[in-house]
Amino acid sequence: MVDDPIKAAVHQLRRLPTIGEKSATRLVYWLLRNAGVAKDVAEVLHLLEEGICECEVCFNFTGNSPCAICRGSRDDHLLCVVEEPQDVLAFERGGEFQGRYHVLHGALSPLDGVTPDRLRIRPLLERLRHKDIQEVILATNPTIEGDTTALYLARLLKDLDVRVTRLAHGLSVGTEIEYANAISLARALQNRSEL
Amino acid sequence: MVDDPIKAAVHQLRRLPTIGEKSATRLVYWLLRNAGVAKDVAEVLHLLEEGICECEVCFNFTGNSPCAICRGSRDDHLLCVVEEPQDVLAFERGGEFQGRYHVLHGALSPLDGVTPDRLRIRPLLERLRHKDIQEVILATNPTIEGDTTALYLARLLKDLDVRVTRLAHGLSVGTEIEYANAISLARALQNRSEL
Repeated sequence: MVDDPIKAAVHQLRRLPTIGEKSATRLVYWLLRNAGVAKDVAEVLHLLEEGICECEVCFNFTGNSPCAICRGSRDDHLLCVVEEPQDVLAFERGGEFQGRYHVLHGALSPLDGVTPDRLRIRPLLERLRHKDIQEVILATNPTIEGDTTALYLARLLKDLDVRVTRLAHGLSVGTEIEYANAISLARALQNRSEL
Repeated sequence: MVDDPIKAAVHQLRRLPTIGEKSATRLVYWLLRNAGVAKDVAEVLHLLEEGICECEVCFNFTGNSPCAICRGSRDDHLLCVVEEPQDVLAFERGGEFQGRYHVLHGALSPLDGVTPDRLRIRPLLERLRHKDIQEVILATNPTIEGDTTALYLARLLKDLDVRVTRLAHGLSVGTEIEYANAISLARALQNRSEL
């Protein structure tokens, strides 16, 4: 029988994804043996809950709105539309993209109740109407939901004077053909280019 | 680029065992999408750091010393000596053991600097001298360190008027012989009993 704080900690940690009863218990006893860590983690989690909002321009998560990217000096003509804040992180990791972002916070999936009004689509149209954006890159995921969202947005943007593009699909760099998945290989074939 | 609280949270979560950069990032964004959880987790972690001490009798982790087990009505003649607080949890899960516990907080491992004075051995001897304990069960792990600790304790306890026992080793219940590990099978053979 453990007394309350240990039980409570196991119970709460179990709410996190991929953490079950055993992992939670192991974590709690690890924290008890490593003084100071629990306090540090508690502090950042508290900050996470209190100090993070959605950027009023691009809707990425940020500590201060507008976010650092929207405040920064970037190419204003280029807008990359992504599903989730993590996707911005992935693009920034590469450092290749120099334009602005717009985070939808999801992809269309009517069966799961994700209809267009649940995504940040209306503010996207506002941005396109009032800013001098020349190209919109629809960087949604290559899934049914992502493709549906891209098609839906492409149709909405048809009447605006803006170029609409989509990310190229094909083999990942470093993937051997032998181990490539069938869909990527099919896309690589469809999008083959002249040598 | 993310602003500070997200980066800080990823950095702190990476300090936990089995959590790398990717898992930490996924956790943080999951927490941002699930409002309230981060705050609850932060609260219990804070309590864990502030509200937990070692029981003055058995040295198990507890919110209040003496712990619930030491305060409760149990068999005072039987003492189970374990390496870690988690081991107490394992015994209590079964509910078979009705005696008291003593937590050593480790096992002897001179090469790693774990010498007898680093374990709660002196208070164990004090307990045995002043309480009416008739049997000490040395429930250390069946590892080199655990076995060494048990042997060391057995020698120390020889002069005291107390029965010293060790847990039985053999096949786990439910294990098929085909899949049993060699050491368990060897122990099962050594400890075979008359039908």
